Amino acid sequence: MTELLSEHACFDGVQRFYRYDSAAIGLPMRYSVYLPPGAQGKRLPVLFYLAGLTCTEETFMTKAGAQRVAAQEGLILVAPDTSPRGAGVPGETDSWDFGAGAGFYVDAICAPWSTHYRMYSHILELRELVLATLPADPARVGIFGHSMGGHGALMLALRNPALFRSVSAFAPIAAPSRCPWGEKAFGGYLGPDRSTWRAYDATALMAAADAPPFPKGILIDQGLADKFLAEQLYPDAFADACQAVGQPLALRRHPGYDHGYYFISTFVEEHLRFHRRNLG
Amino acid sequence: MTELLSEHACFDGVQRFYRYDSAAIGLPMRYSVYLPPGAQGKRLPVLFYLAGLTCTEETFMTKAGAQRVAAQEGLILVAPDTSPRGAGVPGETDSWDFGAGAGFYVDAICAPWSTHYRMYSHILELRELVLATLPADPARVGIFGHSMGGHGALMLALRNPALFRSVSAFAPIAAPSRCPWGEKAFGGYLGPDRSTWRAYDATALMAAADAPPFPKGILIDQGLADKFLAEQLYPDAFADACQAVGQPLALRRHPGYDHGYYFISTFVEEHLRFHRRNLG
Repeated sequence: MTELLSEHACFDGVQRFYRYDSAAIGLPMRYSVYLPPGAQGKRLPVLFYLAGLTCTEETFMTKAGAQRVAAQEGLILVAPDTSPRGAGVPGETDSWDFGAGAGFYVDAICAPWSTHYRMYSHILELRELVLATLPADPARVGIFGHSMGGHGALMLALRNPALFRSVSAFAPIAAPSRCPWGEKAFGGYLGPDRSTWRAYDATALMAAADAPPFPKGILIDQGLADKFLAEQLYPDAFADACQAVGQPLALRRHPGYDHGYYFISTFVEEHLRFHRRNLG
Repeated sequence: MTELLSEHACFDGVQRFYRYDSAAIGLPMRYSVYLPPGAQGKRLPVLFYLAGLTCTEETFMTKAGAQRVAAQEGLILVAPDTSPRGAGVPGETDSWDFGAGAGFYVDAICAPWSTHYRMYSHILELRELVLATLPADPARVGIFGHSMGGHGALMLALRNPALFRSVSAFAPIAAPSRCPWGEKAFGGYLGPDRSTWRAYDATALMAAADAPPFPKGILIDQGLADKFLAEQLYPDAFADACQAVGQPLALRRHPGYDHGYYFISTFVEEHLRFHRRNLG
């Protein structure tokens, strides 16, 4: 059952918050939707946004300022939460970069995480739910995100290019198998056998592609004053993999910008317009 | 001493958070500043934003999406906190509509509030500080705000039309002397003698004006799905006072919009452009 928790008029459209019983997660999960004006009787393009560590389904909708552009472009925006909540796994709230708020968009295979920490399946399930319950066009679904969620967007799109036909990211953790955040998350959720990590690593997925999966290009914005850039993000590794396979990539480096929502809000308009062009 | 706590690139300008030792309050106070690009060597117009109950100096800057327009218009934005913090008054954090986070922009005259709860003087002091430390034009300072802060903006502008030359508000508590929030706050900070309340009540101040204080007009946006409208806000009382004195007022009523930042973000662009036109 999908329950509407609240709704708020915004730029002539409506900002909604929902909760539903997620079969993938086995717990109730929340998500947010921005529905632009003029949706009645139409099938609109949809853009999923995956948030970063510590965020919720609310973060993007309150901080990014995207609704203005979504209203202009006739785009539905959808933002999931970043992990199960209340799963009751011992230690799940002990650190901010693993467990609650840090699901990394993977399906855990290690107990005790494997019972509920199945965010990869959750995103695919939520895509189906949105297509079934909102005036959304299944042929025009894109995905983007930030940091952990920027990587999640790249990874989900690379594994499912027929489901997510356009992809972009802000400051993604572009090669999680080789950075501390990714090693902690993948090690905890997937275990020490690194061969299981490759299916969830966007740079490894791109490197293994036979042909460019997104011929219209991928957009990544990266701030050069981002304190996580050197140790955690590795955009060059992803760019190298794109180049090897011939995947067009616009990796834009912005002097002075950091890792937060003041950076995202500055460039979110260009991401929405990029997806709108790609999705037609 | 003014201490820069953090800064973040945003729309080619910079979002800053400061702390300083406030003489008016007798405690350290925080404020935020958005400085648009191209400020070097110029004197730019400044717009103060006063936030509502429970908010801080951060709320407007993270939720309203105003920096994009401020960058375009060359406007400096300044947002103070909504009360002293850590004043140590017994009970100051017991309720969300009085005490901490609820200073109502008045100088308290009743002990124990009168020692630190002097937000009226704090705003005037902060105006001086901003003019002394930022590339700001003292002849082009405007003020606006939301709810408690929407009233604060109207009241401060009406008492100081030479200091704040343009004023607007979102869903202001327009006649605090006659609503429960205002009666609680004014009764607590100013005492039972209602004659002391008039100097802090925007509707009473407008009613007492000899001539229209803002010939270029005042802008107020009010959502009609605002759950506080009937009991707390009284925009019609302020509109009646404006009409009696010949003060031009655009009181825009928006069906479907509520009291929150999804409402504010929808109309903030028009407020910034209104102030920019008025300030020249």
